[in-house]
Amino acid sequence: MRYLMTFSYDGTLYNGYQKQVDKNTIQDEIEDVLTKINNNEFVSVVATGRTDKGVHAINQKAHFDLNVNITVEKLKLALNSMLPNDIYVKDIIVVSNDFHARFNVIKKEYVYKMNLGEYNPIDKNYIYQYNKKLNINAMKKTIKFLKGKHNFKSFTSSDDVRKDYERTIYNIHIKLKNSILSITFVGNGFLRYMVRNMVGTLIEVGEGKRLPKDIQDIIEKKDRTKAGKTAPAQGLYLENVYYK
Amino acid sequence: MRYLMTFSYDGTLYNGYQKQVDKNTIQDEIEDVLTKINNNEFVSVVATGRTDKGVHAINQKAHFDLNVNITVEKLKLALNSMLPNDIYVKDIIVVSNDFHARFNVIKKEYVYKMNLGEYNPIDKNYIYQYNKKLNINAMKKTIKFLKGKHNFKSFTSSDDVRKDYERTIYNIHIKLKNSILSITFVGNGFLRYMVRNMVGTLIEVGEGKRLPKDIQDIIEKKDRTKAGKTAPAQGLYLENVYYK
Repeated sequence: MRYLMTFSYDGTLYNGYQKQVDKNTIQDEIEDVLTKINNNEFVSVVATGRTDKGVHAINQKAHFDLNVNITVEKLKLALNSMLPNDIYVKDIIVVSNDFHARFNVIKKEYVYKMNLGEYNPIDKNYIYQYNKKLNINAMKKTIKFLKGKHNFKSFTSSDDVRKDYERTIYNIHIKLKNSILSITFVGNGFLRYMVRNMVGTLIEVGEGKRLPKDIQDIIEKKDRTKAGKTAPAQGLYLENVYYK
Repeated sequence: MRYLMTFSYDGTLYNGYQKQVDKNTIQDEIEDVLTKINNNEFVSVVATGRTDKGVHAINQKAHFDLNVNITVEKLKLALNSMLPNDIYVKDIIVVSNDFHARFNVIKKEYVYKMNLGEYNPIDKNYIYQYNKKLNINAMKKTIKFLKGKHNFKSFTSSDDVRKDYERTIYNIHIKLKNSILSITFVGNGFLRYMVRNMVGTLIEVGEGKRLPKDIQDIIEKKDRTKAGKTAPAQGLYLENVYYK
């Protein structure tokens, strides 16, 4: 039987979502527990995509297959009782055997959080503390140049080598509430570091180092060195993943 | 010169505020840094009171004396550059030499936070996750029996031996916003574990295990075993301390 699971995690203590040799990752934790539930037959977990070291998830999704017979309610209880308290399974449903958690994604939503006010130590791993002045209006004017279908090579990791750098951004929303600036990105998919590199570039627009319309040129150049710095991981949340 | 400092901290990784032999505490961290600033002459830091292991502070206050000549602005910068990122100095003022951070306190405010909704891993060290149903109205009806001047021996640590168990609670406020229940306590002072023991007792009222008016009897008995369980540390915040 194939299952689709929705889960949240605090990425602070992990080397990212995706399995790596000898590193502690969120995928490792979940596969270990599911393998135990599956009578020690290895269970491979396929998520919608990786999240990097220190990045959090509110609604990450993944599919996996089990041989044992277990209700989704009991499976959720078993997972949450065995997983560490920084990973939490919110929901599990049964899906058809051809469902694929990564290939079937039509839309993803990421949120980046910055605190423009006084530093609060309890947020140190969850919000990027930013102490300089930002022109938020200029940042908002930048949105229209990022939105739409573009080749985002300038905004991905320089060692991300692939054929297809084209992605579509459906919407970007910038909101200031109290002192927290939240930037929401909705798109059909995101390249590695793409959200954090867009945030870093938006910050440079807010600082007056770049103009909103400079984005057009950055996109055209298809060169990572043209865009802004990568914003720190701890402000980033995978907020939602959508299927047809 | 005597200084009064306002500071916040994430108590997760410390064995409480107050210095103990061979334990890492918030007081140790601050005294180490201030001693460096004071040309390695030891600086003793006197806070308004201790907070226990895992308890946080939004506005803790402490006084200390320095021999070196330094402006409060530079002192704040020096402290924040040398302290770990889970302790943050918000403000420093010069006070008279007879000012005492503990003895001069007239009012303290603590807040206890519980999440009654779905567990969120990023709050694990900052909010107490509570999954059973609570009768919040019954909890609110309990407030009037806790308020006022009482002997709170039933609500303090059983190994807290002292002459004076009398404290005055000026106000208690219970607020539910989204799924977060916040209980605010304002009083002239609090005994060890007193806030967490009042919260534990309020929870038992919310669960229907006790009636609001049972508080009168618990107070009269002056016996720790009569009150409820100690609520977990991570939901507790020292919110404010007031002087004349």
